[in-house]
Amino acid sequence: MKQFISVTDAGSIDMLVKEALAMKWGVLPVNRLGVGLKLGMVFLNPSLRTRLSTEMAAKNLGMEVQVLNMTSDSWGLEFAEDVTMDGDKPEHVKEAAGVLGRYFDLIALRSFPGLKNKEEDDSEMVFRAFARYSGRPMLSMESATRHPLQSLADLITIHEHKEKKTPKVVLTWAPHVKPLPRAVSHSFAEWVLAAGYDLHIAHPPGLELDEEYTRGANITHDQNEALKDADFVYVKSWSKGDPYGELHKEDENWMLNEAKLASAPNARIMHCLPARRNVELSGALLDSPRSLVLAQAENRLWSAQVVLKRMIESIHNEASNPSGY
Amino acid sequence: MKQFISVTDAGSIDMLVKEALAMKWGVLPVNRLGVGLKLGMVFLNPSLRTRLSTEMAAKNLGMEVQVLNMTSDSWGLEFAEDVTMDGDKPEHVKEAAGVLGRYFDLIALRSFPGLKNKEEDDSEMVFRAFARYSGRPMLSMESATRHPLQSLADLITIHEHKEKKTPKVVLTWAPHVKPLPRAVSHSFAEWVLAAGYDLHIAHPPGLELDEEYTRGANITHDQNEALKDADFVYVKSWSKGDPYGELHKEDENWMLNEAKLASAPNARIMHCLPARRNVELSGALLDSPRSLVLAQAENRLWSAQVVLKRMIESIHNEASNPSGY
Amino acid sequence: MKQFISVTDAGSIDMLVKEALAMKWGVLPVNRLGVGLKLGMVFLNPSLRTRLSTEMAAKNLGMEVQVLNMTSDSWGLEFAEDVTMDGDKPEHVKEAAGVLGRYFDLIALRSFPGLKNKEEDDSEMVFRAFARYSGRPMLSMESATRHPLQSLADLITIHEHKEKKTPKVVLTWAPHVKPLPRAVSHSFAEWVLAAGYDLHIAHPPGLELDEEYTRGANITHDQNEALKDADFVYVKSWSKGDPYGELHKEDENWMLNEAKLASAPNARIMHCLPARRNVELSGALLDSPRSLVLAQAENRLWSAQVVLKRMIESIHNEASNPSGY
Repeated sequence: MKQFISVTDAGSIDMLVKEALAMKWGVLPVNRLGVGLKLGMVFLNPSLRTRLSTEMAAKNLGMEVQVLNMTSDSWGLEFAEDVTMDGDKPEHVKEAAGVLGRYFDLIALRSFPGLKNKEEDDSEMVFRAFARYSGRPMLSMESATRHPLQSLADLITIHEHKEKKTPKVVLTWAPHVKPLPRAVSHSFAEWVLAAGYDLHIAHPPGLELDEEYTRGANITHDQNEALKDADFVYVKSWSKGDPYGELHKEDENWMLNEAKLASAPNARIMHCLPARRNVELSGALLDSPRSLVLAQAENRLWSAQVVLKRMIESIHNEASNPSGY
Repeated sequence: MKQFISVTDAGSIDMLVKEALAMKWGVLPVNRLGVGLKLGMVFLNPSLRTRLSTEMAAKNLGMEVQVLNMTSDSWGLEFAEDVTMDGDKPEHVKEAAGVLGRYFDLIALRSFPGLKNKEEDDSEMVFRAFARYSGRPMLSMESATRHPLQSLADLITIHEHKEKKTPKVVLTWAPHVKPLPRAVSHSFAEWVLAAGYDLHIAHPPGLELDEEYTRGANITHDQNEALKDADFVYVKSWSKGDPYGELHKEDENWMLNEAKLASAPNARIMHCLPARRNVELSGALLDSPRSLVLAQAENRLWSAQVVLKRMIESIHNEASNPSGY
Repeated sequence: MKQFISVTDAGSIDMLVKEALAMKWGVLPVNRLGVGLKLGMVFLNPSLRTRLSTEMAAKNLGMEVQVLNMTSDSWGLEFAEDVTMDGDKPEHVKEAAGVLGRYFDLIALRSFPGLKNKEEDDSEMVFRAFARYSGRPMLSMESATRHPLQSLADLITIHEHKEKKTPKVVLTWAPHVKPLPRAVSHSFAEWVLAAGYDLHIAHPPGLELDEEYTRGANITHDQNEALKDADFVYVKSWSKGDPYGELHKEDENWMLNEAKLASAPNARIMHCLPARRNVELSGALLDSPRSLVLAQAENRLWSAQVVLKRMIESIHNEASNPSGY
């Protein structure tokens, strides 16, 4: 695995999920095959779960880890080509990423979308610049368009709890107080579809996700219809695609609660956290045995660990066989 | 030791102090019995000495440590039950602590009092919530009401320097530019009393400490009387209990200096740091051989190390004997 | 090496550079002779490259590292003697450094000049206070007057790329949007001169560097003359010595670009980063094969590693031979 940015980097999802679970259950002994390798974790946005789980996974594998918080105002990076840098951004990504490439063997990056310019966000300008100028394999800790470590943790969680081969998985839009990125939703959709599960997406009109992530899903504006007989219900808010990044305000009745699940008696509830209680979904649901949110969070560790293991193996293969034979 | 939040968790103070000193003097070899265990250090307020000493102690014992600064505005936690989370707090402690409990074997927490509502502070709402929702043993790095790692370091320091079995220990209130928590004073009082030393507390009228921490101490408004023949003088400012959290302003003459110690020729001076020179006590006293403040700071390491050792032993015992037999 | 603050602490520069390169090339196996020693890295100002490289070097040598960011407003240190601390600075350097000295075997410190009072900056008040009150060996991660780890990395880079015994090295002033410290320029000058290279310094009138660092260099106001037949061109902005700390504004034509290097066809370009593209020097130059800026950044690791190795050896020698015999 040379990089981990989207589901297309994952290879067989089934094998990835099963290897993660073999690690979790202690069946596959943790090999410290990362000893001698250095991971740079670069945050252009805040993080809690992602930082903890990725750092812990890397250390479990024997890697040395350094964290760089570039979130403060004083560390704005310039990305434009041919610019005269006489403003408030003191360093160009060419130098910043170039230096990181000299220090680290592998670079993990978090970079949220600006939610101002859809084309710019969709282009993954920041990720592409870090990859290009560092020359190192890139691990996404959430990009402008996707959050694959979250999605893999979600699929591990579904695998642990599913009672049929092809469960009905529902992604249902939720109200929120501020406009959120679409990355977790896009990413979840493409992973669930790639896993071959039966994906239903429910949202109010005007909140369409991008088609490239959802092709093959059943999409509806009728939340009740989507929830019927669901096995897993993933609650998530996201902002509009058009006008891009705008908050959708008028639909408090999209909040998920127990009553809405009358037609889905076996449904388990998922959320990537942090969750707004009684805004996105009821506190009662989060506190009920239906909730898998802590299991998802715990699986972030195993998601990161299996991905880092694969990337380390790729670095070792590259080193022992540089010409690709 | 299943938790470490107050003196009642300590067992025999004498044995705890002696084990810490055995570690410090190299008599008791440091056993890396924390290998494989993960400590999460959570700061809801800033820290310097406490972070350094606790992290160093945990690493000396072989633990893996991750630090979480939740002090920034962007990471407000919601504690209220049944709230609609449509304000500025993005995550509920139920989920936040729940996730930490999935990642860590032991959780160290710092959470200062708000100094607005005495009942709320005295209830230790934050600590109780983290303990309940993480399901993990809790180590206090200063709570709303107590600072036991500091108090244990203070008692280690007294033990090292006392020249009689039952020294006279004086806790004397000091002026300050802002209202400070009462936690260090309360905690010091309950530990000194539990150790069986002769505790005298001096403060201006209106600055009474809570009786549950000071029962058994001699309490006076006459600083000179308290200081007479003192062996150890602990200088500390604290805010009023009623009106709760208010700064006491009018008593600059309570600042400690050499002249006031004429009647206590052998007194050693203690302070938990940071100290306001020439406000709380004279710079000359801090610079004199009487001062034990750096010895106290150094003993923070051994205080944390013996406590973590005991908590790790308890985790191992629990694991090998889960039903408690 | 008991401390590392200026070139006079370095001993033979030639031997230091060669030992660093022996480490880099793997000729000299990395000895983990820092095991059991604790390094405290104290930042009174922000840092990226310096933090990463110093921490990585220390860990490579087996040291345990803790980072202290004292940059926030809430952690102002008082340095004045006999002051009444009733303002916004909660702790005196006497206690702060004293505590650090109890926790760490070696203290690395970054402390920029205030650029307000030349005499105060030149006195290195902050460094001297930390050295005095901690009682520990001090490693400069950039002080008010010098940046020796950068200069050593620069000399390692020159050594790797020079094609003659005594290359012509040019330090040329560059425009900038804000007034910068003079430390990197002063330090580069004294190291290049100590190495015996042919140093030329070019700057507009009024931007004279302090003579104690530049004695022996050829100094000119004619940039073209300086650049002629240069082997290495170090681009750097600095503020005025008189009036102290003032930005020099009117000289955009001092920006370095390809055209100016017509008379120096073999010149390699150096910069300590971060660089303002098309303000200090052209983006084209930074992107050209002439640029050594990433090589310099990479050599920060080896610079820190050889210096820490020497300081650790000195600590071990001191321990086995405390009386100095």
